[in-house]
Amino acid sequence: MRVAVSGAAGMLGRKLVDRLSKSGTVAGKPISGFVLHDIVAPTAVNGPIKTEMLVSDFSAAGAAEAIVASQPDIIFHLAAVVSGEAEADLDKGYRVNLDGTRALLEAVRKLGGDYRPRFVFTSSLAVFGAPLPDVIPDDFILRPLSSYGAQKAMGELMVADYSRRGIIDGISIRLPTICVRPGKPNKAASSFYSGIIREPLNGVPSVLPVSKDMRHWFASPRAAIGYLVHAAELDTAPLGGIRSLTLPGVSATVADEIEALHRVGGEEAVALIREEPDATIHAIVSTWPKAFDARLALDLGFVPDKTFEEIVRIYCHDELIRA
Amino acid sequence: MRVAVSGAAGMLGRKLVDRLSKSGTVAGKPISGFVLHDIVAPTAVNGPIKTEMLVSDFSAAGAAEAIVASQPDIIFHLAAVVSGEAEADLDKGYRVNLDGTRALLEAVRKLGGDYRPRFVFTSSLAVFGAPLPDVIPDDFILRPLSSYGAQKAMGELMVADYSRRGIIDGISIRLPTICVRPGKPNKAASSFYSGIIREPLNGVPSVLPVSKDMRHWFASPRAAIGYLVHAAELDTAPLGGIRSLTLPGVSATVADEIEALHRVGGEEAVALIREEPDATIHAIVSTWPKAFDARLALDLGFVPDKTFEEIVRIYCHDELIRA
Repeated sequence: MRVAVSGAAGMLGRKLVDRLSKSGTVAGKPISGFVLHDIVAPTAVNGPIKTEMLVSDFSAAGAAEAIVASQPDIIFHLAAVVSGEAEADLDKGYRVNLDGTRALLEAVRKLGGDYRPRFVFTSSLAVFGAPLPDVIPDDFILRPLSSYGAQKAMGELMVADYSRRGIIDGISIRLPTICVRPGKPNKAASSFYSGIIREPLNGVPSVLPVSKDMRHWFASPRAAIGYLVHAAELDTAPLGGIRSLTLPGVSATVADEIEALHRVGGEEAVALIREEPDATIHAIVSTWPKAFDARLALDLGFVPDKTFEEIVRIYCHDELIRA
Repeated sequence: MRVAVSGAAGMLGRKLVDRLSKSGTVAGKPISGFVLHDIVAPTAVNGPIKTEMLVSDFSAAGAAEAIVASQPDIIFHLAAVVSGEAEADLDKGYRVNLDGTRALLEAVRKLGGDYRPRFVFTSSLAVFGAPLPDVIPDDFILRPLSSYGAQKAMGELMVADYSRRGIIDGISIRLPTICVRPGKPNKAASSFYSGIIREPLNGVPSVLPVSKDMRHWFASPRAAIGYLVHAAELDTAPLGGIRSLTLPGVSATVADEIEALHRVGGEEAVALIREEPDATIHAIVSTWPKAFDARLALDLGFVPDKTFEEIVRIYCHDELIRA
């Protein structure tokens, strides 16, 4: 199996390639080669699998063609301009997130013949927008409130259309908010959801800008990588025309997060959280999904984290102990 | 008010321009000029309103810029490659229906300044696809089963995104199936829905390819023109982020259609319908929406036909008596 990954230098891309190179197989078959693309050089792959590194702007002419030239059996399309940047730069967001995705699909189409790769597209909860029910069903309308969300929703529509036409065997997965995200805090409105766990577990103070009853939808990085691999391996025949899936997750309030932190890191960890209400962040975050009834994905075998405490323990195991 | 219409030579485009030129006003203000665009020359406008005729391929370079150059206050974007052609020619469908719509939005954006026109985009029931509930709510997922439907859904997402960003004041309206469509039968799978009324009322035999319990969602051309004008005039402030509306219609079975034909045209008209089951057409049509709970559009003042009989009488009045 040849495996291509766009956005291979990102957090999920690196963890995905790491997991695949360790197992050496996907969908029950040995991996014969990687094609890894990003705008900066992806980390070198440990192990014997032959790896082609491609470094360019994803939206540059020829980038999509280069990724698919060797006819990879599986394409993980993770590359994207993130939410804040897509909002700040309309042209860049549409160029990378819409035109780039389309270019990748068109590059597959141009190869023609019997070539019909599994195409795993990472979509986002940003495809949903208020007004939202407390628990969102699988057939709820996509009504994004950001350009990033609009572009992801348009990508889902193309993945479904190109799948229906037999050009790809595609699946779009709407990942929950990844938590605990390793690394540094960033300027994303969602940053505190990971920060209030990660910083205290590293002995560093962390600011909580919203009230403790704020509820959101989470998956650990480990669960997210499991989702990506499962999306590459599952039988798509039972999906019919449904090529987009909201993935299962853990619905937790900030209070639930703090309770889990208490169990894992004790009182001293919790004491490092400082409440500092920020009306702007509160307003943004309060329009986000709180929970899903992700029945379809559960039936298809996607396995979520069990509890928020498990999410915290995965962070400790994968990022603190192993690091 | 300056009014631009793309697809102005089509059935709806002609009726829309006819109605606007007769009233001479829109949104309570006099119309000072029309900009009419189509790939063939739109019919000349009767009356004193100054009219600029533009004839070109909608997807050609410069077409979008020419349509918006005079900064029309209202843009009716009706131009589209129809369903069958968009399915047969993937490139052409995406070029006109997606890239063309985007070019029009970008042409508005490039004009910049305070220019922020009302933008009325005709979407379609083709954005919905099976599995569907019997009565589809306003917040049901868009899951098109045709490239045309995918392109219309992507257009809706762009209209909403460009509206949210303040570039246009946009609204996408999902029109019911237009019935009774004037003119000749065509190769569309939906052709019989109009044909079994139109042909008998003109003394011509007509074939019914599906069973009489098949149910679908209809609006007369007159109601559809009312929808377009109302979409141009309504206050969009209460819509918030919701920029796409499923419009109200009449849910009727083929049996309901035949009963209405009987009341209007008598037994001799009904006798001209010949049942000739066609499994292919039956299969296509049976995946289509049967009815909507179009609460939002009703609350916003969109006024549907009252009954299928009214739809038949509108055909007689507008197409047979006036013609």
